[in-house]
Amino acid sequence: MPYLFKLIWRAWPAQIWLANYNRKSFNADLLAGLVVTMMLIPQGLAYAMLAGLPPVTGLYASIMPLIAYALFGSSRTLAVGPVAIISLLSANAVAIAHEKTNIDVMSLSMTLAMLSGLLMLIMGILKLGFIANLLSRPVSIGFITGASIIIALGQLKHIFGININGHNLPQLSQSIIVNISNLDNITSLIGLATVSFLFWSRHYLKNLMRAFCSINLAYAISKMAPILAACVATFVVSYWQLNTAGVKVIGEIAIGLPRLQWPNLAPDVALALLPAAIIISLIGYVESISVAQTLANKRRQQINPNHELLGLGAANAAASISGGFAVTGGLSRSIVNFDAGAVTPIAGIVSALGIALASLFLTPLFALLPKAVLGATIFVAVLSLMDFHEFRFTWRYSKQDFMAMLITLSSVLFVGVEAGVIAGVMASVALLLWRTSRPHTAIVGPIPGTEHFRNVERHAVEQCDQLVTLRIDESLFFGNIRFLENQINQILVAKKGHLQHLILMASGINHIDSTAVEKLLDFNQQLKDRGITLHMSEVKGPVLDRLEKTHFTSQLTGHVFLSQYQAWQTLAVNENQATVQTKSSI
Amino acid sequence: MPYLFKLIWRAWPAQIWLANYNRKSFNADLLAGLVVTMMLIPQGLAYAMLAGLPPVTGLYASIMPLIAYALFGSSRTLAVGPVAIISLLSANAVAIAHEKTNIDVMSLSMTLAMLSGLLMLIMGILKLGFIANLLSRPVSIGFITGASIIIALGQLKHIFGININGHNLPQLSQSIIVNISNLDNITSLIGLATVSFLFWSRHYLKNLMRAFCSINLAYAISKMAPILAACVATFVVSYWQLNTAGVKVIGEIAIGLPRLQWPNLAPDVALALLPAAIIISLIGYVESISVAQTLANKRRQQINPNHELLGLGAANAAASISGGFAVTGGLSRSIVNFDAGAVTPIAGIVSALGIALASLFLTPLFALLPKAVLGATIFVAVLSLMDFHEFRFTWRYSKQDFMAMLITLSSVLFVGVEAGVIAGVMASVALLLWRTSRPHTAIVGPIPGTEHFRNVERHAVEQCDQLVTLRIDESLFFGNIRFLENQINQILVAKKGHLQHLILMASGINHIDSTAVEKLLDFNQQLKDRGITLHMSEVKGPVLDRLEKTHFTSQLTGHVFLSQYQAWQTLAVNENQATVQTKSSI
Repeated sequence: MPYLFKLIWRAWPAQIWLANYNRKSFNADLLAGLVVTMMLIPQGLAYAMLAGLPPVTGLYASIMPLIAYALFGSSRTLAVGPVAIISLLSANAVAIAHEKTNIDVMSLSMTLAMLSGLLMLIMGILKLGFIANLLSRPVSIGFITGASIIIALGQLKHIFGININGHNLPQLSQSIIVNISNLDNITSLIGLATVSFLFWSRHYLKNLMRAFCSINLAYAISKMAPILAACVATFVVSYWQLNTAGVKVIGEIAIGLPRLQWPNLAPDVALALLPAAIIISLIGYVESISVAQTLANKRRQQINPNHELLGLGAANAAASISGGFAVTGGLSRSIVNFDAGAVTPIAGIVSALGIALASLFLTPLFALLPKAVLGATIFVAVLSLMDFHEFRFTWRYSKQDFMAMLITLSSVLFVGVEAGVIAGVMASVALLLWRTSRPHTAIVGPIPGTEHFRNVERHAVEQCDQLVTLRIDESLFFGNIRFLENQINQILVAKKGHLQHLILMASGINHIDSTAVEKLLDFNQQLKDRGITLHMSEVKGPVLDRLEKTHFTSQLTGHVFLSQYQAWQTLAVNENQATVQTKSSI
Repeated sequence: MPYLFKLIWRAWPAQIWLANYNRKSFNADLLAGLVVTMMLIPQGLAYAMLAGLPPVTGLYASIMPLIAYALFGSSRTLAVGPVAIISLLSANAVAIAHEKTNIDVMSLSMTLAMLSGLLMLIMGILKLGFIANLLSRPVSIGFITGASIIIALGQLKHIFGININGHNLPQLSQSIIVNISNLDNITSLIGLATVSFLFWSRHYLKNLMRAFCSINLAYAISKMAPILAACVATFVVSYWQLNTAGVKVIGEIAIGLPRLQWPNLAPDVALALLPAAIIISLIGYVESISVAQTLANKRRQQINPNHELLGLGAANAAASISGGFAVTGGLSRSIVNFDAGAVTPIAGIVSALGIALASLFLTPLFALLPKAVLGATIFVAVLSLMDFHEFRFTWRYSKQDFMAMLITLSSVLFVGVEAGVIAGVMASVALLLWRTSRPHTAIVGPIPGTEHFRNVERHAVEQCDQLVTLRIDESLFFGNIRFLENQINQILVAKKGHLQHLILMASGINHIDSTAVEKLLDFNQQLKDRGITLHMSEVKGPVLDRLEKTHFTSQLTGHVFLSQYQAWQTLAVNENQATVQTKSSI
């Protein structure tokens, strides 16, 4: 037992930084944690709204998850909490499940967070983090851009105080066109003023503050614009009693800390939410690990992808049992945390305590906070996620990758966010299969007087009518073995009648999967039926070891030669019929 | 226009064999076509039953599709028509859609066939046949084995005359246990007798017939056992009037040819059936192309995968408009066709005409054919599809592939056939990503006195503290770039402080996708921040061309060296600090 405890202690990421923790580190973490708290309050309220939940749940989702991540995550500066895209995914999934099951959305959101958390924990324990590689950059960019547009359009509801419904571009734009004439004047004024202020502060507040403080702090302060806007707007609303004049406000929020409760994990509910949980865990992980990796690289620290999964999984499980919803590491918050000087996850714990204090004492102040300000905060935040430069870059670099990007983007816009992720991943995988389905192969022959074998189409090499050597420059697997089958068949059709030996030169083969082995055995049989012997040469050690586990080597009609030269000497030169082909050497 | 006509004529696969068609070919095709007709009649009736449709639709699905395939397909001996697994997939999908939409199953089956056909046509036209590579051999075997068990258990319903429901193993076995005591005695007698006869004939009839005729003909005749059983059973039933004694028979069948009619392609119906259509088109194509390829190889003929898609697509579209259901190339029928001497698709047209004549004149004879015989036919046919030898082989060869097989099999058995295909494909892709996510890399240095660079861990090579060269032996893409990022980071952590130059030796890189380029640019920036220059060497021409399209080469802090030796000379030897490491040379 003490040994097990030691093992767990050693694996625990926190002990790396706990060893050298001192007062100076704490002061740095304290400042950064408080700065992030100031950012998190309006973001939490706003993203809860985006997730279709009461605003206070955004605060709840910013307490326990931060502590859980601090305990189990491997990034020292990642700021975990609600983020826009995950909130949207959660809202969509929960709305559909609510229609089916009639369970309330809060309960479903908690279930979804738990499922996402469990999936991340499982991936972390089984070291399946590589699955997230499925989300290639074109797919991520296409997805984020599309989701941002959908989120931004949805916020016009709050910014203009109108009624908007829809999960995709056609539905939303239809809804906006129909309802825009019913906009509420004062709400629109507040909303547009906030949007303008936030855009201005994004570009100018930082430069303004640089006159007074360091660049990092100036950047952090510029990120305080939302809470500043929230304070001013709340004051304006309460002073002129605008909440009675049609401006929608958050309203009374229950004071206090979240109560712990176990989410509803009934099989039918869990099954209905599972696909969304898979998508949320993948997207959440990918977004978070990119941020964590970038920040860690800047300070030459290491990120352990599997620990990241454990940390995020624990954070989501914690969100689930404390009345929150799905969370992950946020880009802008983490940068602010980093720039404000955070050195360890203690900064995250400080933020969590800050939010806890806010839930205990400040919630009465939020009652008159207009929803238009939160809508504007989301609107400006997601617009900065769009990156059209990436589209131009990808278009110029690779038309195929651009296609994957466009498929993802248009699926998100015209069908929905989940459909977009699925379509994008499918496009990436299809692209990968297409690329790998055409392995490079070459018919080779020896350069006269040497032991070097080169492509017959590029070099003047010896050839022999009875013998063909095909060099394969790629591992053989289910994705490319059919192509090879076709190619061998073409060679046979071309060489009608003369051929006695076919040598597969395996110098470029690192792996042969079971689909490919069976196909090679099929070739072997078919060639045998036609009186052609199949040989292999230069098979790498590990590949040969595997082949020898099966009946492959015993069934092979020919030999496995150590070197291609040896194969050539045995099969061709002995027959004394090698002829030098006189193609020009390139 | 005449030019276009010429083009189409040239692309038309039939003109290859039409040119040399003669009386002898026709005689061979006539015999084979008639033999296949005899096989197709009971199979068509049985598989229609399996597809949840009136038996006569199995005959309809064996007329127009055969003609359509003969016109557009590229295999000369493939026998198209209803097959067990596709029928089961169709039945399941249609049953679910029927519950949702309340449209009759016949109409839904036709829609499904049309959708599958259209998907195949689209894949054929866009040359997307490689998508079928997704179905690796372990997944196919796992799927076919699982589906065969499900089908076989379902046939106990007809063989014992009991009531069985369910789509997976737990449901079916539960249902069998509850109902087996209510079996109908006479039905069971007929059913079990037929099963025994069919098993016997599979093993002994061939050997028996070899005494009288050639081996190929004997094989073909042994395949006539089902129609023989059908004739005998029909006679028995009609003689003793067993249909009034509880033996379920096919009953009256409408006489005549199918009427042509357009399927229901309303968007909601099509959308509900689309996922099943995707699965059917993939499975149908993969099963068919394997058979076609094997048979073509035996006669050194060529199969064009895209023509195959067009042929099968046309066959399914034809099935759809002529009152049939989804079809594909059948394994046993095609072998019979081949062995009975078919030389061209004319044999398929003969079979189609044979079935048409049967629908016109023989249907009254089928009225008293007991369903137990058809159930027994399916039962014996699918049991032969199971291949447990493959499981042993795969287990021994690759535990990973075996896992994919097992995941597919158990998903089919315990969830359902569609779930099985999806789980299997996901497992294959995950496996592929996992394998490719760890590219082989090596830190290299020059062998003293040569221009050869080798792995520092295996050879005594020169090294230099300021310089690290990392050779990457794999193309860089979204699946492995994160691994590389981690690896570079580890090198940096290990070399703290000393490093000035990092060279990526790209001799093994055939392709860099956009995800990887962006990541390389990130590395470049991060290394710059730490005062390390990033270089590349031995970049292949096509890769460099692509990189130069972007801002990559201009942003790269270092150089792109033609050869690694040149890079070493410029960066290391000039500093005159290269030191020979003295690890033992392996």
